[in-house]
Amino acid sequence: MKDFLKVVSTDNVMDYLSCFSKMGTEHISINNVFNRILGEDIFSDNNLPGFKRATMDGYAINAGSSFGASESNPAYLIIKGSILMGQVPDFSIGPGEAARISTGGMLPEGADSVVMIEHTEMLDNTNIEVYKSVAPGQHIVDKGEDFKKGEKILCKGRRINAPEIGLLGAYGRDMVKVYKKPKIAIISTGDEIVPINQVPKMGQVRDINTYTLAGLVTGAGAEPSILGIVRDDYNSLLDKCTDALNNTDMVLLSGGSSMGMRDFTLEIISALPKSEVLVHGVSISPGKPTILAKSGEKAVWGLPGHVVSAMIVFKTLVRPFVEYISGLMPEYARILKLPAKLSRNLSSAQGRVDYVRVRVIKKQDGFWAEPVLGKSGLLNTIIKADGLVEIGLNVEGLDKGEDVEVIVL
Amino acid sequence: MKDFLKVVSTDNVMDYLSCFSKMGTEHISINNVFNRILGEDIFSDNNLPGFKRATMDGYAINAGSSFGASESNPAYLIIKGSILMGQVPDFSIGPGEAARISTGGMLPEGADSVVMIEHTEMLDNTNIEVYKSVAPGQHIVDKGEDFKKGEKILCKGRRINAPEIGLLGAYGRDMVKVYKKPKIAIISTGDEIVPINQVPKMGQVRDINTYTLAGLVTGAGAEPSILGIVRDDYNSLLDKCTDALNNTDMVLLSGGSSMGMRDFTLEIISALPKSEVLVHGVSISPGKPTILAKSGEKAVWGLPGHVVSAMIVFKTLVRPFVEYISGLMPEYARILKLPAKLSRNLSSAQGRVDYVRVRVIKKQDGFWAEPVLGKSGLLNTIIKADGLVEIGLNVEGLDKGEDVEVIVL
Repeated sequence: MKDFLKVVSTDNVMDYLSCFSKMGTEHISINNVFNRILGEDIFSDNNLPGFKRATMDGYAINAGSSFGASESNPAYLIIKGSILMGQVPDFSIGPGEAARISTGGMLPEGADSVVMIEHTEMLDNTNIEVYKSVAPGQHIVDKGEDFKKGEKILCKGRRINAPEIGLLGAYGRDMVKVYKKPKIAIISTGDEIVPINQVPKMGQVRDINTYTLAGLVTGAGAEPSILGIVRDDYNSLLDKCTDALNNTDMVLLSGGSSMGMRDFTLEIISALPKSEVLVHGVSISPGKPTILAKSGEKAVWGLPGHVVSAMIVFKTLVRPFVEYISGLMPEYARILKLPAKLSRNLSSAQGRVDYVRVRVIKKQDGFWAEPVLGKSGLLNTIIKADGLVEIGLNVEGLDKGEDVEVIVL
Repeated sequence: MKDFLKVVSTDNVMDYLSCFSKMGTEHISINNVFNRILGEDIFSDNNLPGFKRATMDGYAINAGSSFGASESNPAYLIIKGSILMGQVPDFSIGPGEAARISTGGMLPEGADSVVMIEHTEMLDNTNIEVYKSVAPGQHIVDKGEDFKKGEKILCKGRRINAPEIGLLGAYGRDMVKVYKKPKIAIISTGDEIVPINQVPKMGQVRDINTYTLAGLVTGAGAEPSILGIVRDDYNSLLDKCTDALNNTDMVLLSGGSSMGMRDFTLEIISALPKSEVLVHGVSISPGKPTILAKSGEKAVWGLPGHVVSAMIVFKTLVRPFVEYISGLMPEYARILKLPAKLSRNLSSAQGRVDYVRVRVIKKQDGFWAEPVLGKSGLLNTIIKADGLVEIGLNVEGLDKGEDVEVIVL
């Protein structure tokens, strides 16, 4: 089998991103937008704030009235009135005058700054001393200083986190246009696989891959659609795949670890409507036998049967495709690479990218990446790991102490 | 007001973590456990794998039969049969014998290793040549090699990500004991605040804080309970807080930016059942006027009215409390600090911790943290930022090029 693989690089795989169509959009409540992808550019339909606001408690004044004021030479001002929160002041102030104001209050006509309450003293109900001069614009936010009317404030394809939700709220977007969440079908194959609620007989194993992949899909912001286990049988798998393509936006096949099954996978993918095998073999380890095909505008992946390999292939290859169809623009993908130093030498074969599981350890001089030893098929190695270190295509190995980037798991 | 604050350090705030009670537990389907916190230690009730498995396609043999084999001097072996996936082999092999096996297949009695198919050639239906010697244990996983029966495999308080879900599946845990998600009440206060679906009149602003905090709560793995806006009125706020304490696990009060309102907040917190103000003022900027109180075993926070300050206080102070009551053990909290170099000098006042918003830029020599300029009250500064840089309590400032850690937002 191995000889038939036309192995391509991970970069080659990414060239196929644009073969697939992005999800449509929908309008959902602002209460549910966390971690969703914005489906339109958002423009400011008004100045934010809509008026000159105090950012400190104190007195709204015309800055000129405070010039030269100091502890030893205070300025004397007359209190013209108090600003009520949420109200338009019904008076204006002139030179030598002040208005009591709280943080968030609207400045009266004639005021251009706020002197902090700490820098004043009340002499009586209508007179204050000011001990410090303020500059025009100090301790206030001007109308439109945060965002101006007409400005683009958020871009389509941005992931919506807390600050974005706040901004959507500020602009009254109680319904938000977002990309629909992709539904990703997960199909596990193999005669040795049993559902997790069964006790496996000798020779059988529980369906670990389905649940691991479901977790990865959820973590990528998509919705897993668990389609169960298919026996090593051409027709059952073809039916299941056809079904998956009709009801979901991407298909992940995993397992099929028997030799015959792997032949099936390729045959079946070729038998799907409007299908084309794009990638059959990637120069990564683990994960070499990965398949990427398209059926219409949907991606069908054949993932390695080893769960750890499947996880690594998902993180490094599948996830960017999930994000792409989710509408996420690459510039808004999370920073997931942590600089660290390698704790021991690592060797690698040239001509392929190796992913080594590492534990990240914080020491006095920064983060260290400590390779997790153990056979690649073992789940315990990934349970112990915090991330992956990539050893590049044309690198023979990495030295102890070398700077590496850890792909955080 | 400021003079009454007995300002404490962030470390002092963390000393109060254990004042609060952790959530109870519940059993939920493995399909919903992603990102939840494990509510019990999980022990291995069986060896994983339960039998000796092949990790490569090829022939199961006794390693001794291959010793000394090479391209020029192959070993000749007799094929005794084929192993079916998911089946216990009904034959054993002896020296000089081999059994066809696929990845994941169960080794027959007498075999201790697998020779890869690439290193063999079939002579006829019953005879193969082997071109490479294998060691005992090679290309197989032994019974219990991943996890041994009786071993603790996952600890209570661990966050459940994809690998943990896989492992729970491997042990047949279709229902999983997890900590309940805390419900966090969010109350916005202030006469100037209007619901986001209203057009604010001059002097009014939309309720940005509620939605920003809801996003932060969701991001911390808890469930926001939006209780709306309360006017600057003692009784309304006391009623709302009482209500919140009866129905949720923590209360966040935000806003109350008028001077009178801030007095209320403290009065009201003191009037709540079994209440005690633990912290009133923290030596951080922004965020100094933060209040932490307990009512019974529940935390009540008074957060700054400025949304950016409220966000920073949430990230640095509130979130660890949310995680604590969620049952998360600190060792399983995500690594959120990215090493970077500072792109310009930053000054700071001694005696407080400053949080500066930064944009993270990747350059040839690593990550650089570029401070985002602009007044601290502006939302646009946090929209542009990727993280926060902390300037420590007794540090006067940081120099351009200095190593810093970015708290990723």
